[in-house]
Amino acid sequence: MIDLDANATTALLPEVVDAMLPWLREGHANPSGAHREAKRARAAIDRAREQVAALIGADASEIVFTGGGTESVNTALHSMDWLAGGGRAVVSAIEHSAVLRCTEAMARGVSLAPVNADGVLEMDAIAEHLKGAAFVSVMMANNETGVIQPVSKIFQMAKAMGLPTHSDAIQAAGKVAIDVKALGGDMLSISAHKFHGPKGVGALYVRSGLAFEPLLRGGGQESGRRSGTENTAGIVGMGVAAELAAKHLIEGGAASVAAMRDAFEAKVLGELAGVTLNGDPARRLPNTSHLSFAGCEAAGLLILLDEKNVACSAGSACMTGSQRPSHVQLAMGIPEVRAKSSLRFSFSRLNTMNDALNAADAVIAVVGRLRRVQGGGVGPVTVYSP
Amino acid sequence: MIDLDANATTALLPEVVDAMLPWLREGHANPSGAHREAKRARAAIDRAREQVAALIGADASEIVFTGGGTESVNTALHSMDWLAGGGRAVVSAIEHSAVLRCTEAMARGVSLAPVNADGVLEMDAIAEHLKGAAFVSVMMANNETGVIQPVSKIFQMAKAMGLPTHSDAIQAAGKVAIDVKALGGDMLSISAHKFHGPKGVGALYVRSGLAFEPLLRGGGQESGRRSGTENTAGIVGMGVAAELAAKHLIEGGAASVAAMRDAFEAKVLGELAGVTLNGDPARRLPNTSHLSFAGCEAAGLLILLDEKNVACSAGSACMTGSQRPSHVQLAMGIPEVRAKSSLRFSFSRLNTMNDALNAADAVIAVVGRLRRVQGGGVGPVTVYSP
Repeated sequence: MIDLDANATTALLPEVVDAMLPWLREGHANPSGAHREAKRARAAIDRAREQVAALIGADASEIVFTGGGTESVNTALHSMDWLAGGGRAVVSAIEHSAVLRCTEAMARGVSLAPVNADGVLEMDAIAEHLKGAAFVSVMMANNETGVIQPVSKIFQMAKAMGLPTHSDAIQAAGKVAIDVKALGGDMLSISAHKFHGPKGVGALYVRSGLAFEPLLRGGGQESGRRSGTENTAGIVGMGVAAELAAKHLIEGGAASVAAMRDAFEAKVLGELAGVTLNGDPARRLPNTSHLSFAGCEAAGLLILLDEKNVACSAGSACMTGSQRPSHVQLAMGIPEVRAKSSLRFSFSRLNTMNDALNAADAVIAVVGRLRRVQGGGVGPVTVYSP
Repeated sequence: MIDLDANATTALLPEVVDAMLPWLREGHANPSGAHREAKRARAAIDRAREQVAALIGADASEIVFTGGGTESVNTALHSMDWLAGGGRAVVSAIEHSAVLRCTEAMARGVSLAPVNADGVLEMDAIAEHLKGAAFVSVMMANNETGVIQPVSKIFQMAKAMGLPTHSDAIQAAGKVAIDVKALGGDMLSISAHKFHGPKGVGALYVRSGLAFEPLLRGGGQESGRRSGTENTAGIVGMGVAAELAAKHLIEGGAASVAAMRDAFEAKVLGELAGVTLNGDPARRLPNTSHLSFAGCEAAGLLILLDEKNVACSAGSACMTGSQRPSHVQLAMGIPEVRAKSSLRFSFSRLNTMNDALNAADAVIAVVGRLRRVQGGGVGPVTVYSP
């Protein structure tokens, strides 16, 4: 399988699995215990906290381990909801469903800041939305298009107005450099499995000194910020994945990933007519390619690509089951028919240049086939999932 | 190390680790994806759901996978808070901190139903508390004393009054048989790492047809009841652990665990004076022994037992760092000095009879040593943790 679905999840690096194994075997002690095995587990968690902090320029004490990215996001929003005064939440129209569903459920309400046709948040519109707002949450990079958002500028503006701020950096972490001090926000969410770590573990950066309200209450773990017995193996795996991601970025690995993505796009766009690249190409994650194929329904393309051993997504993995067009594309003003003909190809450093070129060949073949079936490209063909 | 800290956490069974490994290696696909690897992960999760459901007599559709027991409990209480009308929450005074801290934070308030000197909930008191209450949450077995509570009777009473019900069965699951249909409640929380599964994964039973409000919102996984990318490896591990726990119970394994616990207690009580067994001996979990040692501080005993390679806890693992006496013991009317001289020894089926007898020897030796240090048993000796 050529795995071009890294924005859905990534393969664990062998070093990550190897680091986890001792904590799934002999190192099972509860880190809150008093005996020596418990203290050994506690020390392993402390080390992972340093590693995760280093990936985003935080202090170790500012890292709260969670049960995943969605929990991190829900916790951040819950805490800001508790901390903030009156007014609505402000989020972008292209946020992940974790941010959208969570803020929609708040009694205070939420307003959606729009993006332009290139999928970039519009600063003037954000400025308008922030007037009288309670807090703001904007993603660092969009999960579908990969477009990187002007989070630092937005945080500056919000800070000047005294508003708490959070960024969902789940798609950005490990793919581009993040420095929470330079960014200037209050909270930031990341998830291990998006950068070759395990599923079921994430982290929330909570700025030192920020008033904070936990979402999960109980035994008082994570300095009272997230209760629940620590998932030692998962946390250790996240730590190692963070350290390796930081190394990858320092060594210029993002450019190699971009080179594969670009070669894939160049081939597809060079050999196929009627393909549109979505999202500002100048400010995307290095790994993401979001393409619309005129006259082809995404559902059919997915089935045919699966047969050709290429894994990718229509919209985000979370939405693959649904036949609705993506809210991200609709927010960019992409017409519904085009939105339903879009695929997301997302690379990782585990791909090769051959993967990129072979996947491009597969895409060219299946788009050609789908278009031939419908005889000339008039209107989309629907291929139902078996 | 003789591990008598199973109520804090348990070692993963080799079969559990083996079942998890493929999903940490090649089976990393996001179960929400459309391609074949994603569908393979989805099928593995479906199978684990059947296995966990079978352990507690639920239908697979009634199982919601979470990031651990604390999240399960917080979700259940959050959902009942949303579902219930006016009135306070009712919980027992000996609940785990997950239940206590979560209900204390609710605007509706909480009232604590008392237990008797044997650590058993008093039905008359519960009946009084339920008048005008909003919902009730009572644990199936206490984590410190192991005392099994009359949950079924309490649920019957609550049901007659139309109140939603939840049981924290985290310490009971895998140690004694549970049948949610016979129990008659609405929700029940369990945690994999308490029955030889991995940390960072739990489940919440939600009765079919019950109105439910999620705590974590986002991608809509778990039929909208718990968003967040599924931790395939953890969930598969929990499934296998549940299946093996069910087998252990069917094969009468609880009696073997009780035999070890009883041999340990008989030896300690037979050879040491001034030892009190806490909690009704006739209605305890088969694995738990909660003992007070007159004239000895638990903190000192823990250090000396650690040196003798015996792992156990003072109160619960979550409270080991604190010098406060356990709220469970105070609720039982145990005086503070005795409460601070108590240790919890909790066995699992991975222990041997030799472990039990050697641990008893170690306990006898260290209690004798601590008592000699202070010359005759007058008042407790304080040994500080290094």
